[in-house]
Amino acid sequence: MADTENRPTPPEPSPQPPSAALDPRIAAQLTRGPDGLVAAVVRQHDTGEVLMLAWMDDEALRRTLTTGLATYWSRSRGEYWVKGNTSGHYQHVKSVALDCDGDALLVSVDQVGPACHTGARSCFATELPTTVGRRPSPTNGAPR
Amino acid sequence: MADTENRPTPPEPSPQPPSAALDPRIAAQLTRGPDGLVAAVVRQHDTGEVLMLAWMDDEALRRTLTTGLATYWSRSRGEYWVKGNTSGHYQHVKSVALDCDGDALLVSVDQVGPACHTGARSCFATELPTTVGRRPSPTNGAPR
Repeated sequence: MADTENRPTPPEPSPQPPSAALDPRIAAQLTRGPDGLVAAVVRQHDTGEVLMLAWMDDEALRRTLTTGLATYWSRSRGEYWVKGNTSGHYQHVKSVALDCDGDALLVSVDQVGPACHTGARSCFATELPTTVGRRPSPTNGAPR
Repeated sequence: MADTENRPTPPEPSPQPPSAALDPRIAAQLTRGPDGLVAAVVRQHDTGEVLMLAWMDDEALRRTLTTGLATYWSRSRGEYWVKGNTSGHYQHVKSVALDCDGDALLVSVDQVGPACHTGARSCFATELPTTVGRRPSPTNGAPR
């Protein structure tokens, strides 16, 4: 507050107010789905564990990039949510990467507590039965 | 091929023909987006590296689970694609997990070559500038 005291003729407002919109150079790289959203893959920054998938519109991405706290658009509730605001399980953002076609983000975070509302560390808890594929060995297909 | 040789009266067709639809017990757990798709996060099964994000409808998931080769729905081309069919960069499926709200899959694969059409190992190559968040240290907020 010190810089606003006893100043009769303030110069241009300082500090700069936060930008009201996502950097247009970033916005131009996004390929949004029919609902205006991009997918955000969230992983623990040091272990690489994939924690959850959430959704962002431009404003959620702007808040994430400018606050250091992962912020999403809730498709079910129709509102922004700072992950952890109700649970305390915040995600402190370490880096954010955009994919080659602009429709997905990889958000590396320091996850406080479990990522999932079920109490599990990761939301990906239901294993589906699958046929396991195998890379052909170098000798496969060669006459023996 | 040996089991088809010199067999005059074949029994019931074997192997079983593939099911024409995704297992309804799995289909019932999916929460599809407005375009009928769920997001598929793809990672290298042993290193955990996040490689790409793609999209699946029920049929793409059925093909993935029954063939062992990751198969997606291309939103841009409007068709199914077996990853690697044109590039040779197949994804041999090791496991598939569904998330807690049914709108995302985590597909662990053995990725042959680069995952990205750009030639990069991972599609998440564009780092965005972000404010880095930090977990409060235990002493933060306590009087000193």
